[in-house]
Amino acid sequence: MEIKSYKKDTFYSYTLGAFPTIELLKNHQNDVLKIFIHTSFTNEEVLKMINELRGKCEIEYNDKMINKLSPKGNCFVIGVFKKFVTNLEENKDHVVLVNPSDMGNLGTIIRSSLGFGLNNIAIIRPGVDIFDPKVIRSSMGAIFSTNIHYFDTYEDYCKVFPNHVKRTFMLQAKHTLQEVKFDVNSLTSLVFGNEATGLDRNLLDENSIIIKHSNKIDSLNLPSSLAIALYEFTKQKQQ
Amino acid sequence: MEIKSYKKDTFYSYTLGAFPTIELLKNHQNDVLKIFIHTSFTNEEVLKMINELRGKCEIEYNDKMINKLSPKGNCFVIGVFKKFVTNLEENKDHVVLVNPSDMGNLGTIIRSSLGFGLNNIAIIRPGVDIFDPKVIRSSMGAIFSTNIHYFDTYEDYCKVFPNHVKRTFMLQAKHTLQEVKFDVNSLTSLVFGNEATGLDRNLLDENSIIIKHSNKIDSLNLPSSLAIALYEFTKQKQQ
Repeated sequence: MEIKSYKKDTFYSYTLGAFPTIELLKNHQNDVLKIFIHTSFTNEEVLKMINELRGKCEIEYNDKMINKLSPKGNCFVIGVFKKFVTNLEENKDHVVLVNPSDMGNLGTIIRSSLGFGLNNIAIIRPGVDIFDPKVIRSSMGAIFSTNIHYFDTYEDYCKVFPNHVKRTFMLQAKHTLQEVKFDVNSLTSLVFGNEATGLDRNLLDENSIIIKHSNKIDSLNLPSSLAIALYEFTKQKQQ
Repeated sequence: MEIKSYKKDTFYSYTLGAFPTIELLKNHQNDVLKIFIHTSFTNEEVLKMINELRGKCEIEYNDKMINKLSPKGNCFVIGVFKKFVTNLEENKDHVVLVNPSDMGNLGTIIRSSLGFGLNNIAIIRPGVDIFDPKVIRSSMGAIFSTNIHYFDTYEDYCKVFPNHVKRTFMLQAKHTLQEVKFDVNSLTSLVFGNEATGLDRNLLDENSIIIKHSNKIDSLNLPSSLAIALYEFTKQKQQ
């Protein structure tokens, strides 16, 4: 089997680096097709861990392949895996991203969400491809511990999860996150819009929230907004 | 005067895009050397604003120059300015970044800090160059409303601002941000380490803080951690 540089329509993708590869093996061992290691890689501890986790998966020392898949050249371990589909858990809180457009941002958001215990993420199309190696890398492998599911429209998502209270984050909202009391007994969806355009105005309602900030900036960036929302929401849940 | 692509040792730098150029003109008009506009740029509202703000500064329509300074090609306005030095205000809270290494992160941090009203940032060397056009761009021009000063060592910073209570953010800290009560009557420095290595262990003390997160991730990314800290700190200050 010949492995080519990632394209959206291939049935496989790959991790760049030892850390995400270990996360891949821990959580999706059965989906792993092959592990490539650079001959100059000699971290015994990591090699031992990969060997323990790899199951029946083949390891190949192949510098040419690593250089091909990782043009930046600062990567020594690559795990090739079959793309997989995951479903969101109905009895858990969700993060909903409407039309996310930046791969680095998406990876950072997956990592922060997992950090605050939210590992169910809905993406409303069009949205960036979660299996792009850039997303996987910036998620630091958190993507392999997260359920992520695409929906064609926000309405489709709402139909599947009608019982989640949708808290939409919008600059036009009346209630500030600084004052909001979340209903910690309800299932909740934290809903965020596109980096440049935000959420559609018709989603504005009593459940909408703005993270209050000074008028010296237009807006906070998307991963920062999400990190703040996750922090405040989980803090209230745990009180 | 010939303008070349940015290098750290040149005496000038430049904004890429209309929005940061307007922020530059609003806050540092006297430092502006020249404004370049692409001939295809026809946003009347922005052109009017630039004209009102430019003072004696010359505008030149020069597509070749814009293409040279903005290789990505999605930029139509560039403001060239003399680099300037700013000092931190003694009677304000500070953000302190020890050895920040990522330009995009630094810009995002400047933007978030300004968003929460903290516009005094100390950078401990080695740290990325605030005047790199990539930092300016990712700050969305917030850099022009912010006092930023470099110090050779963290100790140097502490000597200049001995009265600020230093709250160091460290994964080894005992107190969690979720529980901390900031002393809102003291001047405070929120201190963060390098993206990969964090702060030196010898800075660990009773004032150290960890943002509690699940053990499924190694750490939150730096701009996200900072955004959360700024949110919680300013929320407590305003209560």
